[in-house]
Amino acid sequence: MLFTRRIYQTNTNLDDALRVWFDFIQTMNPLESEVVPVHEGLGRVTAEAIHAKVSSPFYHASAMDGYAVRFHETFGASETTPVQLILHEQAVPLNTGDPVPEGFNAVIMVEDVNLTGDYVEILSPSTPYEHVRAVGEDIVQTELILPENHLIRPVDIGAMLSSGNYEVRVRRKPVVTIIPTGNEVVEPGTPLKTGNIIDSNSYMIGALANQWGAEYSRSDVVPDNKERLKQRILHSSNESDVVVVLAGASAGTKDFTPNAVDELGKIFVHGISIKPGKPVLLGMINERPVIGLPGYPVAAYMTFEMFGKPLIYRLLGIEPEQPEKVMAKLSRPVASTLGQKEFLRVKVGKVGDSLIATPVGRGAGALMTLQRADGIIQIPELSEGIAPESEVNVMLIRSKREINNTVVCIGSHDNTLDVLSNHLKKKFPAYSLSSAHVGSMGGLMAIKKAEAHIGGSHLLDEKTGEYNVPYVQRFLKDVPLKLINLVYREQGLMIPKGNPKNIKSLDDLRRGDIAFINRQPGSGTRLLTDKCLRDKEIDQRNIKGYEKEEFTHMGIASAVVSGAADTGMGILTAAIALDLEFIPVAQERYDLIIREEHMGTPMMQALIDLITSDDEFKESVISLGGYDVRDMGKVMYEQ
Amino acid sequence: MLFTRRIYQTNTNLDDALRVWFDFIQTMNPLESEVVPVHEGLGRVTAEAIHAKVSSPFYHASAMDGYAVRFHETFGASETTPVQLILHEQAVPLNTGDPVPEGFNAVIMVEDVNLTGDYVEILSPSTPYEHVRAVGEDIVQTELILPENHLIRPVDIGAMLSSGNYEVRVRRKPVVTIIPTGNEVVEPGTPLKTGNIIDSNSYMIGALANQWGAEYSRSDVVPDNKERLKQRILHSSNESDVVVVLAGASAGTKDFTPNAVDELGKIFVHGISIKPGKPVLLGMINERPVIGLPGYPVAAYMTFEMFGKPLIYRLLGIEPEQPEKVMAKLSRPVASTLGQKEFLRVKVGKVGDSLIATPVGRGAGALMTLQRADGIIQIPELSEGIAPESEVNVMLIRSKREINNTVVCIGSHDNTLDVLSNHLKKKFPAYSLSSAHVGSMGGLMAIKKAEAHIGGSHLLDEKTGEYNVPYVQRFLKDVPLKLINLVYREQGLMIPKGNPKNIKSLDDLRRGDIAFINRQPGSGTRLLTDKCLRDKEIDQRNIKGYEKEEFTHMGIASAVVSGAADTGMGILTAAIALDLEFIPVAQERYDLIIREEHMGTPMMQALIDLITSDDEFKESVISLGGYDVRDMGKVMYEQ
Repeated sequence: MLFTRRIYQTNTNLDDALRVWFDFIQTMNPLESEVVPVHEGLGRVTAEAIHAKVSSPFYHASAMDGYAVRFHETFGASETTPVQLILHEQAVPLNTGDPVPEGFNAVIMVEDVNLTGDYVEILSPSTPYEHVRAVGEDIVQTELILPENHLIRPVDIGAMLSSGNYEVRVRRKPVVTIIPTGNEVVEPGTPLKTGNIIDSNSYMIGALANQWGAEYSRSDVVPDNKERLKQRILHSSNESDVVVVLAGASAGTKDFTPNAVDELGKIFVHGISIKPGKPVLLGMINERPVIGLPGYPVAAYMTFEMFGKPLIYRLLGIEPEQPEKVMAKLSRPVASTLGQKEFLRVKVGKVGDSLIATPVGRGAGALMTLQRADGIIQIPELSEGIAPESEVNVMLIRSKREINNTVVCIGSHDNTLDVLSNHLKKKFPAYSLSSAHVGSMGGLMAIKKAEAHIGGSHLLDEKTGEYNVPYVQRFLKDVPLKLINLVYREQGLMIPKGNPKNIKSLDDLRRGDIAFINRQPGSGTRLLTDKCLRDKEIDQRNIKGYEKEEFTHMGIASAVVSGAADTGMGILTAAIALDLEFIPVAQERYDLIIREEHMGTPMMQALIDLITSDDEFKESVISLGGYDVRDMGKVMYEQ
Repeated sequence: MLFTRRIYQTNTNLDDALRVWFDFIQTMNPLESEVVPVHEGLGRVTAEAIHAKVSSPFYHASAMDGYAVRFHETFGASETTPVQLILHEQAVPLNTGDPVPEGFNAVIMVEDVNLTGDYVEILSPSTPYEHVRAVGEDIVQTELILPENHLIRPVDIGAMLSSGNYEVRVRRKPVVTIIPTGNEVVEPGTPLKTGNIIDSNSYMIGALANQWGAEYSRSDVVPDNKERLKQRILHSSNESDVVVVLAGASAGTKDFTPNAVDELGKIFVHGISIKPGKPVLLGMINERPVIGLPGYPVAAYMTFEMFGKPLIYRLLGIEPEQPEKVMAKLSRPVASTLGQKEFLRVKVGKVGDSLIATPVGRGAGALMTLQRADGIIQIPELSEGIAPESEVNVMLIRSKREINNTVVCIGSHDNTLDVLSNHLKKKFPAYSLSSAHVGSMGGLMAIKKAEAHIGGSHLLDEKTGEYNVPYVQRFLKDVPLKLINLVYREQGLMIPKGNPKNIKSLDDLRRGDIAFINRQPGSGTRLLTDKCLRDKEIDQRNIKGYEKEEFTHMGIASAVVSGAADTGMGILTAAIALDLEFIPVAQERYDLIIREEHMGTPMMQALIDLITSDDEFKESVISLGGYDVRDMGKVMYEQ
């Protein structure tokens, strides 16, 4: 079985891969056309030049409400020598848009006349064609309304109809067939068994195609069988303009896509030196493009943007919009592999006048990191990384307005932040809350370096037993700020349902048969753990798994649920969420640190308003379980 | 009849009108929700928070193609002391994504092993969970995937499906009913009679509503009858979320909308001190919003953007995106009326490093000026205008990329430019040609002031009989440039079919019974006309209509077609286009003036490539009639 494995034959440089692909794309013509009613043309692309069939207006029309006159009959009119015109004979009442009658050649506004019986008295002369919209003033018959290859907007629909074009020849929408593959891949909604992978990629890639103006059809999942895959690809390439095969292009035993494409047509590129996205395949069958996308969702998404988007736009005959770019300051250093171009997802926040970019997780499988990202930065192939504080060029995923309206919270993780994020968006749709989880000390440092609006912190001072204040006084002593309480929460040991290892307290960690899972240094939970262990004089070295670290409470809870660990320290809410048992160890205070300078901004006010006085938010937090909201919104300390 | 006329009761300041409207909008809640399959959710708005129903992955999965191992069995492995593991027992082959079997806790990559019979030989130890995607690594069950009021993107579809959400509760799409009114308004496609107005506005306004995420239904045209209009408005306000009445809100005799709304509900604002858009009406019936839009298309479009867009977004629960803004230099002065806020359409071009904004026509009825505009500038109420060369803030309608890729041509009008524009877009979809018609001298001046890439010119030097070169030498003597020929063209007198006034030559203009229509001073055609008149010793003062001016050849042709004039000077092509007869007067040369510095840019190269060597373009020009292309693309002069 193993000899069928395929190590990457090529490791093409991205620029070379793009060149090969664009050369191929350039050989393709935009698609044939179809005729649609103009009012159904929004978002379609013209397949021929549109010229005016009639002028607009197509008759001399009154531009005002008033009276049509013959301008030479108005000569000499003035305040002292008014001219009287016979109503209906010399002065014909008109509304805006009415045709100016034959022989008349000016319009006097209703505001400028006196009506006296059967006469219209005017006080100033008019000039030829005054207040008349002459034939063709807006559109002249035969003039170009839209060129070929024009993306139709609402105003274009108005212009086409006004110029007598009621139907429009547009490009047919490209049809993309998406073929998910793999025995393990199941339709969304199928009851899940271990080893199953929900086919979310097809629909995500399909939605991208839709967004770019294409239609997609998704085939059933093709199992790992080369002949069946070949049949499906061949059939699809006859029926559609673009074939996308999902996964099956890496080097696993069951990756039949390269062989299938090779036997049916031609492979241009297989394997690109980028991260994520390495196992991409580009080829053609009977002149029709075939793209093999990686199985990891982030890799699939990003490589479809690189190779699928320009292809679809080419078939439509238009150019893709370029994403907005901004310069931002990188908040922490990033290492990267030489010889591989990396596309790194970042959160971007506007703190004071600076844009700050913070790298998020890098796994090709971590879709949520892309879902939550604000932008992408590129690390060149010949770079080993980027120093902190560097200015980096960020390709934005969200708009600048959204980024400017986002409260950036860095620090300890707490589930209440999710609830806060949701309620903020619900009550104030203009604002968002973005939170990055780097532990309480990380939050403190982010506030010190002015990289966040809010630091989330639950740092216990061993000497005084006080939370947060001693740390703020030590590390942020010159920074005017407020500490606002969010919640008190229960910390304790999470254990599996039924407590199979019979854990009763922290003391059991000494036993040696218990696999512990720890939090990262600098997190409040780690400090609490260490303090409790010292209080009980338990030696860390005797705890199995003490060196294994997770970054969030839910990470700890997941490890316990899955059996990767027997227990770990975390908040009650996380235990409740994943249906674990819980042994309380301490109640701790979770505060938000906010620099004084940000307190007055409208978005911060909206957020504080929620925390201090929104009952619905408070109820939602209470319903999570494990929280005490007695001081929610209270200023615990300021300096 | 006239006593029913309604002079504007109010002339509300825009800010006040917006305040009243936003106060009203804030009282409305986002719409109720409906459930759709996630894969149909693109572009919809979440109506509740979406949480993960399953973790992703929901089992420990291999992150690589390789072998599952127990990490403690790999201890001590090195190049010199390889460790051998029994295949299938101690080392289980896995593909990426496969579940790591019970009891195994690390994966070794296929590249890092040697396969020797029934053994897998490894050369370095693995660490716990190395190359394993642990449960919840991407998504942890219960975590927040999307907040309420979130516009669903492709990546969100992936994230929802991956987290076990197969259906999503989204906001119902707002329904906008659009009611066109007026006896003169006809459905697109109806054979046109004088006085008819094609109802293009309904579909344009409807397309805007679609673009913002609403559905629209258009009612039949309601004739001028207050009771019928009232019935229709009342019915619509029961059936839809927003009622839009098109026109009928100004002060004409037949404008029943204000009375209808007044009798059915409440008018907040009627008449706003803006231009265009003054006769807007804002009101409500049974708490449902009603918007009366002006009849002129530009005014309707812009006021629907101001008042309809925030309303629809409010009903959806999201914030509208803000248009991009840029600073640009105003190329010519603009006067404005005190007490009225004006929204002025401009073309924006990037010439060298400067963005140049050039005002286009201002009529509320001139839809093409909006269709061709790149942006809008605002002139405050208390301003009488803006000086030339001022820096102005432009709200962009087209993207910066499109503007940067647009060749700006200013100067004399020629139909060939339309053809060129179309062929450029067709052959090079990335590029556009924008042309403003200000006459040949205007083009020369635009090149001098570096406000255009190309000047279009046919200036005849009376002394030498030579075209363009003497003018360039006189007015642009220090500017390195090339003169490239576009076409030679026939100029002459356009006359109506059948020549009812029996015009035979320019001499007939002396006759006194012939109404002439002239071109504006500074245009090449005006210079030609004046030269020919002098040659023939015809006194301008004896020509009826000499002082009446149009700005384009098609404008002249239209005036002749419509009977507004008996004849005018223009190019043969315009006469052919509108089926006029033509008396040749002269052949003239039409050149493009291009500054040397712009010659090498890719977009200019694309354009020159078309002119010099594209047979399809040449054929299209010839087929217009009246053109001689013998020197097309030839450099006639350079300095």
